Amino acid sequence: MRMSQTIIKPLKDAPKDADTTNHRLLVQAGFVRQLMAGVYTYLPLGLKVLNKISQVVREEMDKVGGQEILMPMLHPAEIWKKTGGWDNIDVLFKIQSRTGKDCALGQSQEEVVTPLMREFIKSYRDLPTSIYHIQWKFRDELRSKSGILRGREFLMKDMYSWHETEKDFEDYYKKVKEAYLKVFKRLGLIAKVTEASGGSFTDKVSYEFMVLTDAGEDDILYCPDCDFCVNIGIAKVKAGDTCPACKKEKLLKDRASEVGNVFDLGYKYSKDFNLQYTDEKGERRYPVMGCYGIGISRTMGTLVEKFSDEKGILWPKIVSPFRIHLVSLGEETLMAEKLYKQLLGVTEVLWDDRKVSAGTKFADADLIGCPLRVVVSEKSLKEGGVEVKNRSEDKIKIVTTKGLLKMLQ
Amino acid sequence: MRMSQTIIKPLKDAPKDADTTNHRLLVQAGFVRQLMAGVYTYLPLGLKVLNKISQVVREEMDKVGGQEILMPMLHPAEIWKKTGGWDNIDVLFKIQSRTGKDCALGQSQEEVVTPLMREFIKSYRDLPTSIYHIQWKFRDELRSKSGILRGREFLMKDMYSWHETEKDFEDYYKKVKEAYLKVFKRLGLIAKVTEASGGSFTDKVSYEFMVLTDAGEDDILYCPDCDFCVNIGIAKVKAGDTCPACKKEKLLKDRASEVGNVFDLGYKYSKDFNLQYTDEKGERRYPVMGCYGIGISRTMGTLVEKFSDEKGILWPKIVSPFRIHLVSLGEETLMAEKLYKQLLGVTEVLWDDRKVSAGTKFADADLIGCPLRVVVSEKSLKEGGVEVKNRSEDKIKIVTTKGLLKMLQ
Repeated sequence: MRMSQTIIKPLKDAPKDADTTNHRLLVQAGFVRQLMAGVYTYLPLGLKVLNKISQVVREEMDKVGGQEILMPMLHPAEIWKKTGGWDNIDVLFKIQSRTGKDCALGQSQEEVVTPLMREFIKSYRDLPTSIYHIQWKFRDELRSKSGILRGREFLMKDMYSWHETEKDFEDYYKKVKEAYLKVFKRLGLIAKVTEASGGSFTDKVSYEFMVLTDAGEDDILYCPDCDFCVNIGIAKVKAGDTCPACKKEKLLKDRASEVGNVFDLGYKYSKDFNLQYTDEKGERRYPVMGCYGIGISRTMGTLVEKFSDEKGILWPKIVSPFRIHLVSLGEETLMAEKLYKQLLGVTEVLWDDRKVSAGTKFADADLIGCPLRVVVSEKSLKEGGVEVKNRSEDKIKIVTTKGLLKMLQ
Repeated sequence: MRMSQTIIKPLKDAPKDADTTNHRLLVQAGFVRQLMAGVYTYLPLGLKVLNKISQVVREEMDKVGGQEILMPMLHPAEIWKKTGGWDNIDVLFKIQSRTGKDCALGQSQEEVVTPLMREFIKSYRDLPTSIYHIQWKFRDELRSKSGILRGREFLMKDMYSWHETEKDFEDYYKKVKEAYLKVFKRLGLIAKVTEASGGSFTDKVSYEFMVLTDAGEDDILYCPDCDFCVNIGIAKVKAGDTCPACKKEKLLKDRASEVGNVFDLGYKYSKDFNLQYTDEKGERRYPVMGCYGIGISRTMGTLVEKFSDEKGILWPKIVSPFRIHLVSLGEETLMAEKLYKQLLGVTEVLWDDRKVSAGTKFADADLIGCPLRVVVSEKSLKEGGVEVKNRSEDKIKIVTTKGLLKMLQ
């Protein structure tokens, strides 16, 4: 993309109302705009990142047998009344339709997916099965802050699975856990898995996937040596205690952001919607149900919290809006255009072809945070090529165009 | 995909509540499920088609310089009060938030995009510019019928453009008109462009893109020889009259579905939100604004209305959920699996590997409507290969696996 022809226009100053790094940088660099508290427009750069995170999540869900569908956001009140959510979930947005029928905006989709699956789960032969979608959710939060970490409208992947036995659910949960850790690893994040309470709708334990960050809303205790990790809310240990799992190291306490979660829903929704299957003996039974969430927009915010410095964002390559930020200086437009077209043949390129100062171009490249900055200028050409710099390093290398193209393959 | 491992399960009988072909076939073949009137879940097959239509639209919008963003669905009431929509638009869903602030669900996005663009349109140098997104819209319809042709929740591409002069808008409109005709042509549809009234928010003429179908909600008059076409609501001619444009043929009257539209919004929203730019002389002026819609989910419904027979759907190749519907019969599982993997290397394949009768498999292949059916059976192997049949023809050909793979390239 040519910046001069787009609305990709980083701001000189940080927004005054930003209370977190992700809000400040995502607005200043031009990824999002706030419409109201907790509700954001994704500008061209932001939409690209959101789509790339979604794609990584999609690939890993497909690998564990998840089938992608798309459920609607507008729900009839009846399904929420059936499960008790209509009266018990304070963040549920309720709508009075002029047809006289009340509706709700989906804050989760158990109420839609369970009755849907009555048609597809009839026999033990249909189990286990899992279904997911990537869809916007709505929560009527009293306060919404922390940029896109906690939204009133936010993008989430939610998967649901059904099983004959608790044991089968546990086995599948372990597969999904590995898939989740792989998602976060591919995104450059290290997630810790904690036990937490199951929330309002189940007395079972749930699992949370946590990324350490000061902008998070949870406190966790974890062992620096083994996998032990627990949400402080249900912990029976405290910081400084010896790890109860490996008995080697002392537990650390830290702030974290929940980027994913898993709930064992037991028979709650199967019973509410009378979802039954016939087992091998011909008896009618309720399946065990699990649900697995990943906050897509929240993960984007968490990435900015983790990967930024005083100059701006440092996107991991896999989700960066562009791999290359091409900066042309002075009168080298023809050379730059030729290079731009060559680079487009191998990767995604943002070309800063604006008539602004070199200082502004460099500052904006740092703000936006693509992994590779390539500068073509009179100086670089004299030195035999283009200047290449990693966003995360200070070192600048001169390489030939050929060398650059080879490097990218 | 292997059907046995999915929820792709066509129904034996058509749904009883379906009043249109698209509703009946999309439900029976397993593309969608109705959650409430006008609100649908897109199952794996349906989601694939929806994404493919979106992608065609996206490519053509990008070619006319549209920049893709994503605007939210939850809107603060203020912006709708500013334009009068809060009181005048009866289909606007209104929500009382527990924060005390009223919200609306987007039924269009002028109210979001206009204030957004105040930041990006400051000078005549920033014009013309155009922005689009592909996002779900909500309309509180009193009655919602015709399957996915008229939804309460529906997917739409809406683009907005801003111009210095009415003339510049007209020029850009002509470019977008060609892009629209190309979109519909690529989708296998012939769209006619009609003049219509501009609706409640403008006294200017608007343009509608119509596809002839009995399931449509509009009546149009058109010339079989030239481009003349007009919505009967504002026509000064009648069926049987000589075409006022080419004077050659007599006008025909037909039922049509509106799959796209264009509105000249004039200065309405620029003034409401005080969007001004500085012209070449240094004077502050309001830009002319246009808006351009394509109903993505409605187009999917229209395709089914146009491309179906008594056995099921006939998807155009470009939007078909799979190019090949592979049917294996009898004990030829190993051969079928080998072929399935070979085919996956070159195209998208749905493999009916279920243990059901040949009759059921053929009926379901016809219902789902992929362009090419490939059958591998003891009989076909004896004859030297696989049976290949186009969904739109009765003729069955025996070709070798090699021949088939070559045919697909």
